[in-house]
Amino acid sequence: MEGFDFAAQIRVRFADTDAQGVAHNSNYFVWFEVARVEFLERYAGGYQKLRDAGIESFVLESHARFLQPAFFDDRLLVHARIHSVRGARFRFDYLVERDGTVLADGWTSHGAVDATTLRPTRLPAWLVESVTAATSSSAR
Amino acid sequence: MEGFDFAAQIRVRFADTDAQGVAHNSNYFVWFEVARVEFLERYAGGYQKLRDAGIESFVLESHARFLQPAFFDDRLLVHARIHSVRGARFRFDYLVERDGTVLADGWTSHGAVDATTLRPTRLPAWLVESVTAATSSSAR
Amino acid sequence: MEGFDFAAQIRVRFADTDAQGVAHNSNYFVWFEVARVEFLERYAGGYQKLRDAGIESFVLESHARFLQPAFFDDRLLVHARIHSVRGARFRFDYLVERDGTVLADGWTSHGAVDATTLRPTRLPAWLVESVTAATSSSAR
Amino acid sequence: MEGFDFAAQIRVRFADTDAQGVAHNSNYFVWFEVARVEFLERYAGGYQKLRDAGIESFVLESHARFLQPAFFDDRLLVHARIHSVRGARFRFDYLVERDGTVLADGWTSHGAVDATTLRPTRLPAWLVESVTAATSSSAR
Repeated sequence: MEGFDFAAQIRVRFADTDAQGVAHNSNYFVWFEVARVEFLERYAGGYQKLRDAGIESFVLESHARFLQPAFFDDRLLVHARIHSVRGARFRFDYLVERDGTVLADGWTSHGAVDATTLRPTRLPAWLVESVTAATSSSAR
Repeated sequence: MEGFDFAAQIRVRFADTDAQGVAHNSNYFVWFEVARVEFLERYAGGYQKLRDAGIESFVLESHARFLQPAFFDDRLLVHARIHSVRGARFRFDYLVERDGTVLADGWTSHGAVDATTLRPTRLPAWLVESVTAATSSSAR
Repeated sequence: MEGFDFAAQIRVRFADTDAQGVAHNSNYFVWFEVARVEFLERYAGGYQKLRDAGIESFVLESHARFLQPAFFDDRLLVHARIHSVRGARFRFDYLVERDGTVLADGWTSHGAVDATTLRPTRLPAWLVESVTAATSSSAR
Repeated sequence: MEGFDFAAQIRVRFADTDAQGVAHNSNYFVWFEVARVEFLERYAGGYQKLRDAGIESFVLESHARFLQPAFFDDRLLVHARIHSVRGARFRFDYLVERDGTVLADGWTSHGAVDATTLRPTRLPAWLVESVTAATSSSAR
């Protein structure tokens, strides 16, 4: 998908569906998280590496736009990219695709905190560099 | 809470928590839905009445802002109100409160469709009137 | 319900339903937990009191039998009682009812561990006494 | 894993974890379902093929035994096999493994119903043959 270099694969579970016969909207935020975790694994050594560095991150804001429903057993690609990193904050963009059709898009913003003090803390330079490199690459 | 006349009561379940020890962000969208369903029951005869009228509604957009974490067993109030109704579209606003502290806010927008044709359809006049009355009352 | 003195109230959420139009089976185990937490609050000072006493408990086994489906917006009673307490182990029984009809029943068994060492530990006497009293009462 | 010829791959999501830092017990029943769906896809043309044949199936009973906790980001194998098929009923067995360690096991029993009448109906011969073949093979 244009503008994205990375995607996680999601298969819609029966438990994800609701009585309208489509994937319930709350699942998209779980899928965003799955894509974010896999993105960080690919480009930044994994979310666990962040936690090992004494950093926790919290979701500050979540947004999703639902364009087309997803159904049971659909194979989806959840594209993810870093939109920006500034100090203790970073934002991810997402796009949910089924066979070339965009089903949804969205973004989440996050704050990094020191795991001990729970006070905002800058993201480590190695992380910023890793994800900036990934972002530049996807902007080509 | 100022500007809201209605709230659903939510108690944070252990299953809602995550390994950070707080309620996982995806749950807030389920709580928004619980509040929306109870709001429609109070002011518009219930979501089932809509379905009985041959109308289904779909979530078009979801947004949440997380200000303070919620914890296991917290008693929350999820305030909800209709923000606007225009043709086939309507929007709800939400505010999640614990003992006077705002933990989160958000909104969702929705589209009404004919349950048979799945084409956009105006909300019935009785629904618009009911929720407009509720909205005016809350704007006093 | 005969044999039960306690029940938690559950309202089936739209997010709980699946594409068969009924509440998904995995939700019953969340409802069992909700009933267990409320039971412990009523008879034993709450689950948090256990955690404050340095005790964590883990689910060792879960069982459910589904007799009739539950639907969106159903008001359910999830009856719960202590079946037995022996050393570090205890078991709860459950029965899910809608207007006098039994929809499901089940049980869960649990092990108590010291929160620091994670080794099995006897449940405190005050807890055993509290829940035994509750059990005797329900056996009348 | 001995006795099993098929396994689904599951990666523990952050949303699956709870405040004890482990995967919440209700998720195992979702994972069992994921394995069941993939098993039916492999050996019986998929769950959708059943639905296309006018058959719905309902979970009648679920059981799980939790031996060791699963953690965030764990890669699990959820082994699944048909235990038996008799008339309108069938049962699956499961075993959840992480790197050779059994974390949990369980089973689910199911009833097939005619999608229109919702009355119990025998599973089609082609399905019984497919899964019996799979079972025989795994019994070697």
